[in-house]
Amino acid sequence: MDTVKYVLTEDRMPTSWYNIQADLPVPVPPVLHPGTGQPIGPADLAPLFPMALIAQEVSQEPTIDIPEEVQAIYRQWRPSPLFRARRLEKALDTPARIYYKYEGISPGGSHKPNTAVAQAYYNKQEGVKRLTTETGAGQWGSSLAMAGAMFDLDVVVYMVKVSYNQKPYRRALMETYGARVVASPSTETNAGRQILAEHPDSTGSLGIAISEAVEAAAMSDDTKYSLGSVLNHVMLHQTVIGQEAIEQMTLADDYPDVVIGCTGGGSNFAGLVFPFIGAKLRGGRNIRVVAVEPASCPTLTKGVYTYDFGDTTHLTPLVKMHTLGNTFVPEGIHAGGLRYHGMSPLVSHVMELGHIEPCAETQLGCFAAAVTFARAEGIIVAPETSHAVKATIDEALRCKEEGVSRAILFNLSGHGHFDMQAYTDYLAGKLEDHEYSRAEVEAALSSLPQVG
Amino acid sequence: MDTVKYVLTEDRMPTSWYNIQADLPVPVPPVLHPGTGQPIGPADLAPLFPMALIAQEVSQEPTIDIPEEVQAIYRQWRPSPLFRARRLEKALDTPARIYYKYEGISPGGSHKPNTAVAQAYYNKQEGVKRLTTETGAGQWGSSLAMAGAMFDLDVVVYMVKVSYNQKPYRRALMETYGARVVASPSTETNAGRQILAEHPDSTGSLGIAISEAVEAAAMSDDTKYSLGSVLNHVMLHQTVIGQEAIEQMTLADDYPDVVIGCTGGGSNFAGLVFPFIGAKLRGGRNIRVVAVEPASCPTLTKGVYTYDFGDTTHLTPLVKMHTLGNTFVPEGIHAGGLRYHGMSPLVSHVMELGHIEPCAETQLGCFAAAVTFARAEGIIVAPETSHAVKATIDEALRCKEEGVSRAILFNLSGHGHFDMQAYTDYLAGKLEDHEYSRAEVEAALSSLPQVG
Repeated sequence: MDTVKYVLTEDRMPTSWYNIQADLPVPVPPVLHPGTGQPIGPADLAPLFPMALIAQEVSQEPTIDIPEEVQAIYRQWRPSPLFRARRLEKALDTPARIYYKYEGISPGGSHKPNTAVAQAYYNKQEGVKRLTTETGAGQWGSSLAMAGAMFDLDVVVYMVKVSYNQKPYRRALMETYGARVVASPSTETNAGRQILAEHPDSTGSLGIAISEAVEAAAMSDDTKYSLGSVLNHVMLHQTVIGQEAIEQMTLADDYPDVVIGCTGGGSNFAGLVFPFIGAKLRGGRNIRVVAVEPASCPTLTKGVYTYDFGDTTHLTPLVKMHTLGNTFVPEGIHAGGLRYHGMSPLVSHVMELGHIEPCAETQLGCFAAAVTFARAEGIIVAPETSHAVKATIDEALRCKEEGVSRAILFNLSGHGHFDMQAYTDYLAGKLEDHEYSRAEVEAALSSLPQVG
Repeated sequence: MDTVKYVLTEDRMPTSWYNIQADLPVPVPPVLHPGTGQPIGPADLAPLFPMALIAQEVSQEPTIDIPEEVQAIYRQWRPSPLFRARRLEKALDTPARIYYKYEGISPGGSHKPNTAVAQAYYNKQEGVKRLTTETGAGQWGSSLAMAGAMFDLDVVVYMVKVSYNQKPYRRALMETYGARVVASPSTETNAGRQILAEHPDSTGSLGIAISEAVEAAAMSDDTKYSLGSVLNHVMLHQTVIGQEAIEQMTLADDYPDVVIGCTGGGSNFAGLVFPFIGAKLRGGRNIRVVAVEPASCPTLTKGVYTYDFGDTTHLTPLVKMHTLGNTFVPEGIHAGGLRYHGMSPLVSHVMELGHIEPCAETQLGCFAAAVTFARAEGIIVAPETSHAVKATIDEALRCKEEGVSRAILFNLSGHGHFDMQAYTDYLAGKLEDHEYSRAEVEAALSSLPQVG
């Protein structure tokens, strides 16, 4: 039997986002003002975000309606397909049942448009003219650029310099959509100039790029800031993935024993797993949930759970999350989308509540898994996604060793068609693994603020 | 109203390919043996192709069943969606109804897997161990590499040198699937060595790469040759596109007045338009059919309709087609998939019968159209596909001028995610237009054989 696709008709596309905050037994710790150490209010965030998104950030409602205008655009590629990877199962000779939710068919090639479209919509509704953002690998920046084009908003993207240089094609993609792309750290902001003064050769980081984008938004009345991961409202928008997956698993007459996603800021992971964890919290079936991060940016496995800044020059509020310290600059691995010093506060909190197992993988093993997957299933996954593939294949091989059939579901968050340089380097033997020692991590953690 | 997607359920995926040969009032001229000038028989083709494909090449049956194993793989991405481009219509302020069939969601990102999977299947069935092929832009080579991985066949791809150098990422893609990629002209074949002796700096052409792939297959018992376009059986396999589109236009409660495709060898074009032309031939509605080729490889608009070799060193039989002469080496434009000196004999014949209007477009206009399309519809099209987009937008603007609403359907044959270098160059103002003069074409045509 061949790989099987489970399709939902459009009338079964979710019409609301799922808010896991409503189902948590303990509320997520509040965001704090760095000056006062007190919880911040909507007014503090208003220079950066439209009120609709600020309301979503703190909402305790179990569901939030997806505006019809956003649904109309979602329907261009949603519901996305879910596959049973029969050819991969055969190649691995495993009794495991392997499923993947495929977000690579969106126009941007990843899950990122799910939130980009929603954010552009709400900003447009509130009269915003321009959005600033940061991007690592470029998946987020290109998705926001696309959404900006659809809603006639100017978009300025601060792109981590190492990616700007490694991935000129992602830049071209954003520019094709009409966005302006700036290599970060840049001389356009105080934050960028400050970093460059101290580290003229800085290759940048998501933390630095966030500083620049936040500063540029705060300085201008008609400009807001847009973040592609980490925040609660971003996790919320991505839950269309998991909601669809639950329905599709029903079509497959199955239910996952293990759900797997790769984690950088946490959004594709949360998008798939939060609806499953929510179902469990409401009395549904128990499942294992695995978060796979790169060993070169081990936020969940080697970081600490504490209050930290979201950016490097301390322009953001303080959020409680798993962090390596806001000055941490990870190795320039190809999975640029996973190179963030922190983790979504909501994902961090849910992990602290015991619902998520973290693991870290090095990139050589991840690319080897991606090649195995490509030859079996035909799909070239993004370097970020290869982490989820690695953990999935390992789990499937454990099933084989143990002689048990478990259902494994992972989020194929994006295709790798923009990232063939990474595969080129891997095939040429040019990639190396890097794992941080405890001492290196301790040094990075010294930048943590003394709060809370 | 937003862009609308028309989806077919899997049970409405075509279960047979449509063979236009059965509906033509005049048969397509026979393929000739270059030595005797007489029609060739199956035995002449047996060193290159499995018998099942040879039979399809000359079949007069109106439909040919798609094997269940091939259907099973098709279902991974088929039926592909058809869209009404409402956002583009709005951006152009046109009364035209613009539709596009989207083949970019296949794992290879284009329509090419439709025939790659079928060809790999039939070769596997007949005990073949290895396939050789050529590729221009890399869409075909990567699709065959993928199909080879699925059916456990070795694949060797002779890649036109200019693309090999311009598009290293396509090469990485083929290698990820496990194929061996050779820059053509190479020193691995007599054909390659002969070209290199005369033109050491040759950047290659599809005609040369075909010579190499054909020679390599003919030299080995367990190896066959696979062609991604031009031949009748390739056009046949692609007709799943048009058959689905006809059903989807019914879902949209509409029918195209104009159907548009870009043409290199002719396969994505034939795949969409043959079922519509067939319907017309069987008494259905009249439609205009437009074939859009690059001005830098003007096979249909400036070539002649005559017998020519399919390759440069004259290893293939003679086929009657529109051709620029088998030694023609087109400019190194980014739409590498359209750089072939000839045209599908079946497309050529159907054009001679009066069912196809050709037109030629230069690349600057095509990229401008692609950027307009991307900002409206979110999809970055392949450079090849940009030719169809250009003709579609021009037609939509004519509708606006004339104040009439026509339905225009084009084949969005592939996404451009692998081709961002082309967009980078376009946005940087580095691309130039080239149109061949009549004298240049006459010079190229002097290589035509005296036959028929």
